[in-house]
Amino acid sequence: MNPEHPVSKPWGGRFAAPTEGLVETFTASIDFDQRLYPYDIQGSVAHATMLATIGVLTNEERDAIIRGLEGIQADIIAGRFSWSKALEDVHMNLEAELTRRIGTAGKKLHTGRSRNDQVATDLRLYLRDETDAILAHLARLQRVLLDTAEAESETIMPGFTHLQIAQPVTLGHHMMAWFEMLTRDQQRFVDCRRRINYMPLGSSALAGTSYPIDRRLTAQLLGFEAISENSLDAVSDRDFVIEFVAVAALLMTHLSRISEELILWSSAQFGFVEIADAFCTGSSIMPQKKNPDVPELVRGKCARVSGHLLALLMLMKAQPLAYNRDNQEDKEPLFDTIDTVKASLQIYIEMLSTVTINRARMRESAMRGFSTATDLADYLVRKGVPFRDAHAIVGQAVRHGIAANRDLTEMNLTELQQFSEAIEHDVFDVLTVEGSVASRAHLGGTAAVEVRRAVDRARKRLRTCSTTPVAGGASNGI
Amino acid sequence: MNPEHPVSKPWGGRFAAPTEGLVETFTASIDFDQRLYPYDIQGSVAHATMLATIGVLTNEERDAIIRGLEGIQADIIAGRFSWSKALEDVHMNLEAELTRRIGTAGKKLHTGRSRNDQVATDLRLYLRDETDAILAHLARLQRVLLDTAEAESETIMPGFTHLQIAQPVTLGHHMMAWFEMLTRDQQRFVDCRRRINYMPLGSSALAGTSYPIDRRLTAQLLGFEAISENSLDAVSDRDFVIEFVAVAALLMTHLSRISEELILWSSAQFGFVEIADAFCTGSSIMPQKKNPDVPELVRGKCARVSGHLLALLMLMKAQPLAYNRDNQEDKEPLFDTIDTVKASLQIYIEMLSTVTINRARMRESAMRGFSTATDLADYLVRKGVPFRDAHAIVGQAVRHGIAANRDLTEMNLTELQQFSEAIEHDVFDVLTVEGSVASRAHLGGTAAVEVRRAVDRARKRLRTCSTTPVAGGASNGI
Amino acid sequence: MNPEHPVSKPWGGRFAAPTEGLVETFTASIDFDQRLYPYDIQGSVAHATMLATIGVLTNEERDAIIRGLEGIQADIIAGRFSWSKALEDVHMNLEAELTRRIGTAGKKLHTGRSRNDQVATDLRLYLRDETDAILAHLARLQRVLLDTAEAESETIMPGFTHLQIAQPVTLGHHMMAWFEMLTRDQQRFVDCRRRINYMPLGSSALAGTSYPIDRRLTAQLLGFEAISENSLDAVSDRDFVIEFVAVAALLMTHLSRISEELILWSSAQFGFVEIADAFCTGSSIMPQKKNPDVPELVRGKCARVSGHLLALLMLMKAQPLAYNRDNQEDKEPLFDTIDTVKASLQIYIEMLSTVTINRARMRESAMRGFSTATDLADYLVRKGVPFRDAHAIVGQAVRHGIAANRDLTEMNLTELQQFSEAIEHDVFDVLTVEGSVASRAHLGGTAAVEVRRAVDRARKRLRTCSTTPVAGGASNGI
Amino acid sequence: MNPEHPVSKPWGGRFAAPTEGLVETFTASIDFDQRLYPYDIQGSVAHATMLATIGVLTNEERDAIIRGLEGIQADIIAGRFSWSKALEDVHMNLEAELTRRIGTAGKKLHTGRSRNDQVATDLRLYLRDETDAILAHLARLQRVLLDTAEAESETIMPGFTHLQIAQPVTLGHHMMAWFEMLTRDQQRFVDCRRRINYMPLGSSALAGTSYPIDRRLTAQLLGFEAISENSLDAVSDRDFVIEFVAVAALLMTHLSRISEELILWSSAQFGFVEIADAFCTGSSIMPQKKNPDVPELVRGKCARVSGHLLALLMLMKAQPLAYNRDNQEDKEPLFDTIDTVKASLQIYIEMLSTVTINRARMRESAMRGFSTATDLADYLVRKGVPFRDAHAIVGQAVRHGIAANRDLTEMNLTELQQFSEAIEHDVFDVLTVEGSVASRAHLGGTAAVEVRRAVDRARKRLRTCSTTPVAGGASNGI
Repeated sequence: MNPEHPVSKPWGGRFAAPTEGLVETFTASIDFDQRLYPYDIQGSVAHATMLATIGVLTNEERDAIIRGLEGIQADIIAGRFSWSKALEDVHMNLEAELTRRIGTAGKKLHTGRSRNDQVATDLRLYLRDETDAILAHLARLQRVLLDTAEAESETIMPGFTHLQIAQPVTLGHHMMAWFEMLTRDQQRFVDCRRRINYMPLGSSALAGTSYPIDRRLTAQLLGFEAISENSLDAVSDRDFVIEFVAVAALLMTHLSRISEELILWSSAQFGFVEIADAFCTGSSIMPQKKNPDVPELVRGKCARVSGHLLALLMLMKAQPLAYNRDNQEDKEPLFDTIDTVKASLQIYIEMLSTVTINRARMRESAMRGFSTATDLADYLVRKGVPFRDAHAIVGQAVRHGIAANRDLTEMNLTELQQFSEAIEHDVFDVLTVEGSVASRAHLGGTAAVEVRRAVDRARKRLRTCSTTPVAGGASNGI
Repeated sequence: MNPEHPVSKPWGGRFAAPTEGLVETFTASIDFDQRLYPYDIQGSVAHATMLATIGVLTNEERDAIIRGLEGIQADIIAGRFSWSKALEDVHMNLEAELTRRIGTAGKKLHTGRSRNDQVATDLRLYLRDETDAILAHLARLQRVLLDTAEAESETIMPGFTHLQIAQPVTLGHHMMAWFEMLTRDQQRFVDCRRRINYMPLGSSALAGTSYPIDRRLTAQLLGFEAISENSLDAVSDRDFVIEFVAVAALLMTHLSRISEELILWSSAQFGFVEIADAFCTGSSIMPQKKNPDVPELVRGKCARVSGHLLALLMLMKAQPLAYNRDNQEDKEPLFDTIDTVKASLQIYIEMLSTVTINRARMRESAMRGFSTATDLADYLVRKGVPFRDAHAIVGQAVRHGIAANRDLTEMNLTELQQFSEAIEHDVFDVLTVEGSVASRAHLGGTAAVEVRRAVDRARKRLRTCSTTPVAGGASNGI
Repeated sequence: MNPEHPVSKPWGGRFAAPTEGLVETFTASIDFDQRLYPYDIQGSVAHATMLATIGVLTNEERDAIIRGLEGIQADIIAGRFSWSKALEDVHMNLEAELTRRIGTAGKKLHTGRSRNDQVATDLRLYLRDETDAILAHLARLQRVLLDTAEAESETIMPGFTHLQIAQPVTLGHHMMAWFEMLTRDQQRFVDCRRRINYMPLGSSALAGTSYPIDRRLTAQLLGFEAISENSLDAVSDRDFVIEFVAVAALLMTHLSRISEELILWSSAQFGFVEIADAFCTGSSIMPQKKNPDVPELVRGKCARVSGHLLALLMLMKAQPLAYNRDNQEDKEPLFDTIDTVKASLQIYIEMLSTVTINRARMRESAMRGFSTATDLADYLVRKGVPFRDAHAIVGQAVRHGIAANRDLTEMNLTELQQFSEAIEHDVFDVLTVEGSVASRAHLGGTAAVEVRRAVDRARKRLRTCSTTPVAGGASNGI
Repeated sequence: MNPEHPVSKPWGGRFAAPTEGLVETFTASIDFDQRLYPYDIQGSVAHATMLATIGVLTNEERDAIIRGLEGIQADIIAGRFSWSKALEDVHMNLEAELTRRIGTAGKKLHTGRSRNDQVATDLRLYLRDETDAILAHLARLQRVLLDTAEAESETIMPGFTHLQIAQPVTLGHHMMAWFEMLTRDQQRFVDCRRRINYMPLGSSALAGTSYPIDRRLTAQLLGFEAISENSLDAVSDRDFVIEFVAVAALLMTHLSRISEELILWSSAQFGFVEIADAFCTGSSIMPQKKNPDVPELVRGKCARVSGHLLALLMLMKAQPLAYNRDNQEDKEPLFDTIDTVKASLQIYIEMLSTVTINRARMRESAMRGFSTATDLADYLVRKGVPFRDAHAIVGQAVRHGIAANRDLTEMNLTELQQFSEAIEHDVFDVLTVEGSVASRAHLGGTAAVEVRRAVDRARKRLRTCSTTPVAGGASNGI
């Protein structure tokens, strides 16, 4: 298969001297853009089909092209295809091989298109698929969180602000906070997908083509929702790549926050959870170590994706129209972003369901740190003390408690009453962590009943927003 | 007005020692967050109204609070209010002054809320307004581009790829490429606005509150489309800030590309346009200089906004729930982004309509650089030559032309026929720049007729997508 | 003082129309570059002195200029100077006022220079001073760390990797790790200062000047170590700004790491330290809260400086020579970086010396987590067991200990011997945290004796590397 | 060779369950860190040698280890070694194979060290070599620039500011501006190398070791200049990676600026240079195109390296001591930075020497744009007109010239005298581009004589600063 083909450049006519070997290596993209081959073939099949309907190709030529490309695809899948650096990129590798296989008809395939619109089309088809894959992973991870949230809707733990114990919350509530972050990511990917799903094909090099192409047909064949409206813009636009990576960077930021919490909670000091052995590694020297490597790596990988985002913004800065070769540098950061996001989501889906929760340790921690001080203040307000005064009174009680090394729950009535005469025996109803949690029973609050309601709403949402396949063809009214 | 009020901290009760002066300066945000005051007041009015409906405030207290806040707002507008660093932030400055003015009722306003949900609410209200302002600016700039595109739909200029002359295009087409970039920005701001327009109020410090608050009412009063569903998430979430700045960074990237082109076109070498004197500055030493300072500065300011984006992503990386003080660092980059984007759009709106276009110079440049070589190749294809062979034939002709210092248009028939016998007398129809442009007459192509169609479609779109006011209250089904 | 001066532009001659108000606001830099005024005056005094020695100015003109500038400086300090936006920047504000005061001689000051080399000179003089200020702050902070390290050289605490307890270390050792980070920062600032301390003056607009200027003299007067060797490069170079901000970003990264540890250590779960009240703030709603706001803000400000670094790199990307107006955008990120770094260092100097250390809690934590497991493995190696086998044996013992809920230190000899017969009674010498720490007594190790040696070496280093004033004039051999 | 070895983890003893396959893939670094193998072996040889001198290994064991490692290295070079993902990283792959080959002695090699100090040592040895390689490339590129500068010291071209023609300069002067940029890069790499060349080995996991290691000996064997002074810091420090990438980002920024100029100069509008065919590529559709792909790609790759820098800063932000797994993410950005920088320098070295210079076009362009206006102003100053007045007079002349479409050089004496009576016949001496250039004959100026002097100084500098090999062993006085 794929024997030595002559590697003359597709643009060699005008040139007096051949490309330097060093230059070939420096400029070729085949090492990384070969992953686009299924989309390049998909685009070529649609293009050939369209060219036949407008009479640029005969039906025989079209069929030869399609059969030829299918054969190449089969060979690639079977590992029987060797990519050539001299042929620069995935487009020319495929076209050269097609021509070798089917002759003249292969040379006609590039009629009315250019690599500039071809690569933009490939990239959008590829990214549409990967967005769908990520959306599916996201939904799976969200379901894991919903299951945990439901199971732990009554589990009490300390809520933190500034990493200081603030108020008791439920673990279910905390899980739903993670869920909400991912919900926004899901929405952003869906919005971004609409802007990915535009067809640039037909823009040719930069100005369109003089052939009477039928772009609506090609768009329909490729399942594009909309058609780009300006050829200069279409070949130079990389907004969809940048927006995708920006959305991914935010998702990774969320995973970095979740990771940070898992790392904290796994420490001896917190002791809230234990990650399963299968997701940890040890030390080459310290025999007792069990390290939360997976969340640490995910936290680290967050930086990587933000780095890619900035590289892409910087790449496009101040580029004049239309296509410039700089744009070739868009692929590696994009591909690495996709790989990183998918791997991180997958491993989180697996890992989270194996985490052991230490409910006793969580509850015990929630009892420390005067976590019900706010409840005492609210109690005083209900007894008629203005909030700001109540806040000051409880502040005094806490100072006393720190000095006496006694939590509010451990003080008796007389002790409490020295800070305010408004305090009566019913104060002990609000000083428990259970009472505190149960009292926050409004929309968005931490009470178990609210958490369960949030889970129900979320399950409904997840069922309805499953990404439905989009019918092809020009929803931008074109 | 606003005489020396005692600046005891709202949280001082628990503390034995006062804050250091250095610390006060280091931690206070009043220098920059005071711009939020109208939104802080708006939020407090809605909160007080709600507290009265649930019986936490009497109607008299509510009215006193609202009147008090209105009086403060009037004083701020009149420049009669002095902000205190000791009171840390806009929230405490306003509340302290309110209490000074109306007494005990002022101390009750903070019931059932915290600065954590208050600042998130203020920021969202503010950002909603600024997003609308930016959308209005964007639409205005787009209209300037449409006017130019229409007026210059027949103006021929060289289209570039790799900054090399590629094919002739029309200036109208080029203007519409700029228009398309801004259209995507507009869509992204609209998408982002939906995620901004969520109400966090009611999340209190992190866990919700034990008062029977009515969040739907508050949301309705403040015109929020949706209500946050998790208190832990709501007080720590800054996604909406990051997404906004990411969208702004892409917009600024577009403006940097437009700026680059204006700078190139204004150079003696290109000479395509002249920016009006009023938008240029000179040199302190070289008397002949007229510099395109405005586009240069806009190009530079693109970097600034990307820097802010990175700072915000890095800020949120690995933060455990819920609120941490790091988040205070979100405001300066956000505010500077908004100021930068608005100023850049405004000055572009003004400047673009004053640019003088040198049509002769543009057309003359389009004649150089063998810009119709692709048309010759397409001509050969129509004569039955496979595209790849046609490409090679024209490449040979161009080599000859370079050596002979003659453009394709300057060769006679015999000279051209030495490269292919398929060339006949009708070749001269396609070798003109006018013929080349007119032949690209499909959707997205550069032909004048297509440009005018694109302008028409765009005008229609602009009319319909004017941001309509959103009715308040919980479209997330809550 | 400073009455209405006519604000005609210094470059107005060639222009037909005045600058727009909007443009004036958009392009003026006086709001932020006025902080450069002492350096602008310093540079002008040296320039005038040099111009007099080469006969371009008379001695009387020189003296008038110097006296005039001194008068202006006095007025600025006294708050009697009003800056004009119409005059764009600090350079033109000062020159216009000088001419108003002394007449024709003022108009001659700009002979043989341009704003392009003037602003580069000002910025370098300013940055040299600020670098020295930062170096002084750094040294002060390092001394605080050395004092703590010395005082706590015997204080045992757990050393962490992956936030899991790894091995016992001393707090003194930990303090010296922080010290080492800052030492590298100090070295980088010193290296960077050498590259800041180049004089661009004399490069004029971009090509040098036709006056017979004496650059060596000016450099000597301004204390520059070296003179720029290429005028095109000198006016467009902003490397020194970027390098400075990169060095600052690393310093802030170190402070973010130190901050993270202080936040962790201040949590209820760790309880290792307590930051003084004066450096904490409370909650507007939770009366018991005492939040480590200062380290949190410093952690957040780290992001800000990295954002500035990115902005500056992006700003300079792909700028053609020589000066472009984009460069004006270098100042705000630089100034904000300097302010941020100085404020962060200052507050750390103050705060660190007030931190209370909970030695008992630290020691107790070090006893947990099988922190001496590595010591047991090393013990076995000394008894002849290959390291990898010893590691595996101790791993088994730890598994047993986790199941039995007993640390290694709590097992008796028989219990230990079931894992290896090599274990004898002397094993208890190495299983204590004190024994473990004391045994790591080589250069760089955690033993108290080594920590004290490191402190001694550091004190010596600090004494010798105090930034000595550099004599002016061309150490680059020019 | 290298048959199925049992892949039990080096830290498996404590673990009940095996690592998941997904986890193995997610956490393994062997795919990218295998490039460190020569340095890992080099470090192990030195470590074994030291262990033998302190009696931890016998001389026979040491020799077996060294011979074993040499055998492995030979097999890797010969392509006879297969890396195992189950063994995680380069360190464990090598150690496992060593033990398989030589038995028990292999298990003793890890005595007194940990992967934490091992990987830091490997990385520093590797980076020291790569820094030297980059310094050598830099020097070569600088020599190409010096040759061109010398050859073109008299070639006149327009100097630009704001991309507007400013004053005539020489191409030699412009080349020396590029040279100066690279000189600063060279200095920064040299400074950075000193901080790379520290030995962390001996820090073990985080606290040092209880074996009586001789770090001075190991440092000497490995050619390290200095020894890390704190074990906690040494295993967690990645400053040297960040500083290196920051220095590389600045270098790439310089190359992006040079690239921008080559792209501009290659355009039809400028036409100053032509890049050799071998360094350009064409278009798949436009037969006439010859695109400056190499400079475009280098300009794009600048963004990539800045992205890596930001990723690394973000990676290290807020990491508590000591080693965290996040750090594994340092390698890919570092390795890609090195590859990018080396490839970019190499291709520039090759490409620059093939660029054809169009001297006539350059000179002709320098005559346009009133480039000698400043010379006229300076002329007037010499006739006694204050500079600011002279500037205004010439501004009027330029306005007249634009209206009359005549450059200053094309006006006759009478015409010129209408702007100032000070103008006499000798004015024509300064209005020529040659006169203008020759008059700027001070240090740093553009006159040919000054350019040649700068070349001479530079050649001398280059000869002396060739990186001399550094003798090993503790120059930090340890």
